[in-house]
Amino acid sequence: MKAVWFLVSCYILSMFIQSAMGGKARHFKWEVEYMHWSPDGEEGVVMGINGQFPGPTIRARAGDTIHVELTNRLHTEGVVIHWHGIRQIGTPWADGTASISQCAINPGETFLYRFKVDKAGTYFYHGHYGMQRSAGLYGSLIVDVAEGEKEIFQYDGEFNILLSDWWHKGSHEQEVDLSSNPMRWIGEPQTLLINGRGQFNCSLAAHVSNSSASPCKLRGNEQYAPHILRVHPNKTYRLRIASTTALASLNLAIGNHKMLVVEADGNNLQPFSVDNMDIYSGESYSVLFTTNQDPSKNYWISISVRGREPRTPQGLTILNYHPNSASKLPPSPPPIAPRWDNYEYSKSFTNKILALKGSPTPPPTHHRRIFLLNTQNFIDGHTKWAINNASPPDRFRPDYDVMRPAANQNSTYGSGVYMLRFNTTVDVILQNANALRANVSEIHPWHLHGHDFWVLGYGEGKFTEKEEAKFNLKNPPLRNTAVIFPFGWTALRFVADNPGVWAFHCHIEPHLHMGMGVVFAEGVRRLGKIPNEALGCGLTGKMLMNNVNN
Amino acid sequence: MKAVWFLVSCYILSMFIQSAMGGKARHFKWEVEYMHWSPDGEEGVVMGINGQFPGPTIRARAGDTIHVELTNRLHTEGVVIHWHGIRQIGTPWADGTASISQCAINPGETFLYRFKVDKAGTYFYHGHYGMQRSAGLYGSLIVDVAEGEKEIFQYDGEFNILLSDWWHKGSHEQEVDLSSNPMRWIGEPQTLLINGRGQFNCSLAAHVSNSSASPCKLRGNEQYAPHILRVHPNKTYRLRIASTTALASLNLAIGNHKMLVVEADGNNLQPFSVDNMDIYSGESYSVLFTTNQDPSKNYWISISVRGREPRTPQGLTILNYHPNSASKLPPSPPPIAPRWDNYEYSKSFTNKILALKGSPTPPPTHHRRIFLLNTQNFIDGHTKWAINNASPPDRFRPDYDVMRPAANQNSTYGSGVYMLRFNTTVDVILQNANALRANVSEIHPWHLHGHDFWVLGYGEGKFTEKEEAKFNLKNPPLRNTAVIFPFGWTALRFVADNPGVWAFHCHIEPHLHMGMGVVFAEGVRRLGKIPNEALGCGLTGKMLMNNVNN
Repeated sequence: MKAVWFLVSCYILSMFIQSAMGGKARHFKWEVEYMHWSPDGEEGVVMGINGQFPGPTIRARAGDTIHVELTNRLHTEGVVIHWHGIRQIGTPWADGTASISQCAINPGETFLYRFKVDKAGTYFYHGHYGMQRSAGLYGSLIVDVAEGEKEIFQYDGEFNILLSDWWHKGSHEQEVDLSSNPMRWIGEPQTLLINGRGQFNCSLAAHVSNSSASPCKLRGNEQYAPHILRVHPNKTYRLRIASTTALASLNLAIGNHKMLVVEADGNNLQPFSVDNMDIYSGESYSVLFTTNQDPSKNYWISISVRGREPRTPQGLTILNYHPNSASKLPPSPPPIAPRWDNYEYSKSFTNKILALKGSPTPPPTHHRRIFLLNTQNFIDGHTKWAINNASPPDRFRPDYDVMRPAANQNSTYGSGVYMLRFNTTVDVILQNANALRANVSEIHPWHLHGHDFWVLGYGEGKFTEKEEAKFNLKNPPLRNTAVIFPFGWTALRFVADNPGVWAFHCHIEPHLHMGMGVVFAEGVRRLGKIPNEALGCGLTGKMLMNNVNN
Repeated sequence: MKAVWFLVSCYILSMFIQSAMGGKARHFKWEVEYMHWSPDGEEGVVMGINGQFPGPTIRARAGDTIHVELTNRLHTEGVVIHWHGIRQIGTPWADGTASISQCAINPGETFLYRFKVDKAGTYFYHGHYGMQRSAGLYGSLIVDVAEGEKEIFQYDGEFNILLSDWWHKGSHEQEVDLSSNPMRWIGEPQTLLINGRGQFNCSLAAHVSNSSASPCKLRGNEQYAPHILRVHPNKTYRLRIASTTALASLNLAIGNHKMLVVEADGNNLQPFSVDNMDIYSGESYSVLFTTNQDPSKNYWISISVRGREPRTPQGLTILNYHPNSASKLPPSPPPIAPRWDNYEYSKSFTNKILALKGSPTPPPTHHRRIFLLNTQNFIDGHTKWAINNASPPDRFRPDYDVMRPAANQNSTYGSGVYMLRFNTTVDVILQNANALRANVSEIHPWHLHGHDFWVLGYGEGKFTEKEEAKFNLKNPPLRNTAVIFPFGWTALRFVADNPGVWAFHCHIEPHLHMGMGVVFAEGVRRLGKIPNEALGCGLTGKMLMNNVNN
């Protein structure tokens, strides 16, 4: 009964807001269930939506309201879906983070996600409970410019590719491995997937390879047949790219073709040209490319592992020039990615990412600066990725004064929950460090829910206040995901202007599973009318019930 | 806060009831989580309790109250535990059936099971959500006679063995297989387990076997080393046996030793002697045996598959006569079980099971008789085990031919809930039939929650009213589980005197997963004071909210 009441009130509320805001309402009915699938030619089990893997692509216009009526058809597991990159302004309960923004949807239950896509861009969605993203619960969410508006960049056609990585060991067993004492590492993925398709037992590039891989014999209708990009010569195309990998940092290239990078995480960039580009889990980009190469040939699109010693073959698909047959394979080997540990290359690419002129600029100063030290630790013998040397316990210290900045902002909190004063400007310094093994420091792409942040700068070693002078306050890119490089730091700034409780975490799924995340709570008192049904079990609920100030 | 209130009120209530009823309160704190384990020498993942597989044995006396504070340490799955054979008189919300007696306990949450064990006997407990019993969530529950009382049978020592079957494919994948269209059958178990221990890659009996199995090289501390039963010569022992197999019907024997069957499902039997005995999933027995054989030797205890063509090796352990070494293997082959399809043998054993003189006898007449036709069907293309072709009336079509596959193999989903008038006498006629394939009819052991029932009789073919004349009303055994044989029927009688909502289902885990169960609701209006927390999502809750009459 309560659930029905909730759905009805959501619906009435949505009608009301709709009429006030304009934009279309787009309705989807989704059912989540496990199913047999062969993402790379080896059959396994994926978490699918309406029988599809990856889930259906949502396509909308800026200003539209998305309604996803999500029914959990799993047998014993809860489920949620996070709309990655959507800021959920005014609808924090629709953010889809289990135990943070909402209670997980239990088996047999239906939850209505209703939220506005306020900004054009390339986004995606994915599970945010346990390791359900690793299980394959993801799909694309593309937002075009509002009705009557024009895209700022010109192109003749567009494509969308969602990148992921795939293990033959199931995600449940991966969870057990990672939670064990001693921890068992999940290892490198077996296959890289482009739109859920990869090849494990064969290679599209066997004919130009020195390896012993056998050529793929594909009819094209196999679940693991590549998703071909069909183009006409002498046109300009937009390629939307998002990475929802569980682990792999990637480098993407289109053989023989330059790419002009124009969008990152739904924000326009000062365009810059590259031969290949790095993309970390949680990031999205748009690039423009022109089909100005020999039209009698087809070309590779390749993704390769970066930042970890690659034990996974390149992911490949074909850029198919009309009127060539799609099965005409490129005559030369696929693009060679920069060496996995060439971090200078990665940094050089990252430093080229700057906001398009006219983009919003950050406030010149901050009210509060939070340092987050990224370390790998043992906690009760279990290997964890800890923030400020603390695992997130169940509650924060009872004597913590939520009305004031912490007495010592450089110290650990322990709870993992940061109360942010509403409308203040917050800096986060992500400080990387050595992992458990000497001379090892890993890449971590950090993703913030409910906001975009400005990336003010990257640096080497330990951050010191004098580095602040080098911050880019002129044209820093707005992102929702930013990487920290080994032994380095990354400085972010955002305004705590979106009432809600927001996850901020490393987007590497096993790292998050091992504790690598915190929660930012802001303007919580302004959320008096959240439906209780979204709250019964989450941190949000606890905070509201305890009437915590902000 | 509500959860805390619930725990506090339960506690106060329990103290109150305790003092009124006598008996000890026995407290347990359990945590459920997945862990790596090697039940048969091959490593897999089991669902363990406090790091143990099987879970800890509960030992109590009749009249005691058990308090199990169960914390769910799984990552995304709910969990419940059913206390198989405990009638839960006055505490139906502690019966541990997800969505029937309670909402599943969500990850991170704790639920207090508090219930009285009112009757001595051999019981067990197990998961009752999805296929978590198949995942290994089970353990023993032994209730001794009340303080100051004497066991009715004499013996010098006792043992307890819990029997199960084990697959190398994980239970999550089994669920996907069974739910697929077309359905994929899980096949026969790889290994039979005695107290969670079996041998897959080796055989204890290799030295006396014609097969190519290699002998086991065991130090004794392996997770898959057999649980040895150590006896002294010329003593009488009680062996408690319970079967929580997911699928296998078993035959148990102790090499060279007769067994005197004295207890079934917590009820005393008219003792009878056998060389070996059948045991179906959901059943428990006690047998007495005397160590009157050549004391210089050890002897086999064996379990073998019955009722399905056996593709699983015997499960073995050793009866170790003092002072022999436990590693001294019996010199002759393990007992040979009756042929798997020798149903006459099974029926002969079953017909010997009669209540001990002085046991409660059934009311001479019934108020209502419910016919439950067991068929295998297609529902929306999915293979299901349907009851009355999934519609929940009291009887199936009289012209149904139980000897052939269903004329219309497509069924529909029904509610499966039977409202029973409080304190009436209910007969259930379980009517077996042909499965989807011609000339196939399977064994189904049906288990009733919240009650024992009298087994009035078994018969061949289709039940007709004239069979009633043959019902045993004099000394029918009281059981909580009764088998229906292929193409046969089984008649049960019970009194609907326990207010609550009770599952009644085939105890074969994949069959239950495929729909083979119904729900009996009785005296629901008498349950005005159930804590809401146990009810929020279950059928119980819906019924109470709708104020359904009974």
